Amino acid sequence: MDERLMQQLEFSLEIDKEKNVFRQTHLSGHGRNENDAEHAWHMAVMAYILREYANEDVDIAKVMLMCLIHDIVEIDAGDTYAYDEEALKTQKEREDRAKERIFSLLPEDQKKELTSLFDEFETGETQESRFAHSMDNLQPLILNHSNGGNDWREHDVTVDKVLERQRKTAQGSQRLYDEVTEPIIRENVKNGNIKQI
Amino acid sequence: MDERLMQQLEFSLEIDKEKNVFRQTHLSGHGRNENDAEHAWHMAVMAYILREYANEDVDIAKVMLMCLIHDIVEIDAGDTYAYDEEALKTQKEREDRAKERIFSLLPEDQKKELTSLFDEFETGETQESRFAHSMDNLQPLILNHSNGGNDWREHDVTVDKVLERQRKTAQGSQRLYDEVTEPIIRENVKNGNIKQI
Repeated sequence: MDERLMQQLEFSLEIDKEKNVFRQTHLSGHGRNENDAEHAWHMAVMAYILREYANEDVDIAKVMLMCLIHDIVEIDAGDTYAYDEEALKTQKEREDRAKERIFSLLPEDQKKELTSLFDEFETGETQESRFAHSMDNLQPLILNHSNGGNDWREHDVTVDKVLERQRKTAQGSQRLYDEVTEPIIRENVKNGNIKQI
Repeated sequence: MDERLMQQLEFSLEIDKEKNVFRQTHLSGHGRNENDAEHAWHMAVMAYILREYANEDVDIAKVMLMCLIHDIVEIDAGDTYAYDEEALKTQKEREDRAKERIFSLLPEDQKKELTSLFDEFETGETQESRFAHSMDNLQPLILNHSNGGNDWREHDVTVDKVLERQRKTAQGSQRLYDEVTEPIIRENVKNGNIKQI
């Protein structure tokens, strides 16, 4: 087997570990915690199904690929909960190290390609990355809402933090923000699942 | 919220259940059983990374989408182990019923689109579906091999069955079959993990 194929297979086996990185979100039906691979799969399918609501036309293949790979760095860096302020401070440094190690398993051209795609997602300056971020927010939101807002309650999350995070949803899809995100937040504030400040 | 968006969100929440459908394959590092959502995610990323080995040029976005949705029917139909001959007899009927129920949650145009994509995967007559099948075989093969062939041993799988199943890998990618699949099978027959007949 040549070196290139061997590297690609090594990367393919390495990313299996993403299935062991667990998130704060719980599966619907009051299920167990979700892992990163499941989250990435769910986001990618939702991106395809909901693509008509992106603020601008998107290259949906690129969005899906971004969704699929955006959490690979968490194999080393761990999941950083969106409302954990201490962990958020060190997130970038941890993820940069992880990105270098894991994508370096690939042949150089593919390392560059995936690194660039990951950076595009992180920077959030293209329409594709903005729509991928909308999915990164919307997917746990609908799971959490289906479970009666348990994940917010458990972490005493306040409405200002939720609104701050969810601004990104509107940047990728104003329509999904207005018709899904905002009404769900309003309902969960009213029910006391999200704390008023 | 309009009817169309409501249907799309209902489908998005329904497919969350795919994370509870467990397979016979175990995660690397002698881990737990893998579920369908993780398998689909892993296949889709591998398809992208390994696309240069497809026998013919493929529309990689279509391949990835096929990988992502091909097991949604198992939410109702359950996972059918590739070497379970009794279950294989009823697989098509179970999956057809599931396909009708689950894809009917979507608006009519998207129901048609996803049903057609699922059927294309099942029929295996296009290059995209053949390459997706290569990934459907290769992904559990590398996990199982990384665990010393445990999944084959546990089920007393014989070499004729493995070769019959893996023929599909060659139809999508002769090179991956020759350089990865065939050597792995040979080694596992030699080590007694796959039974000679």
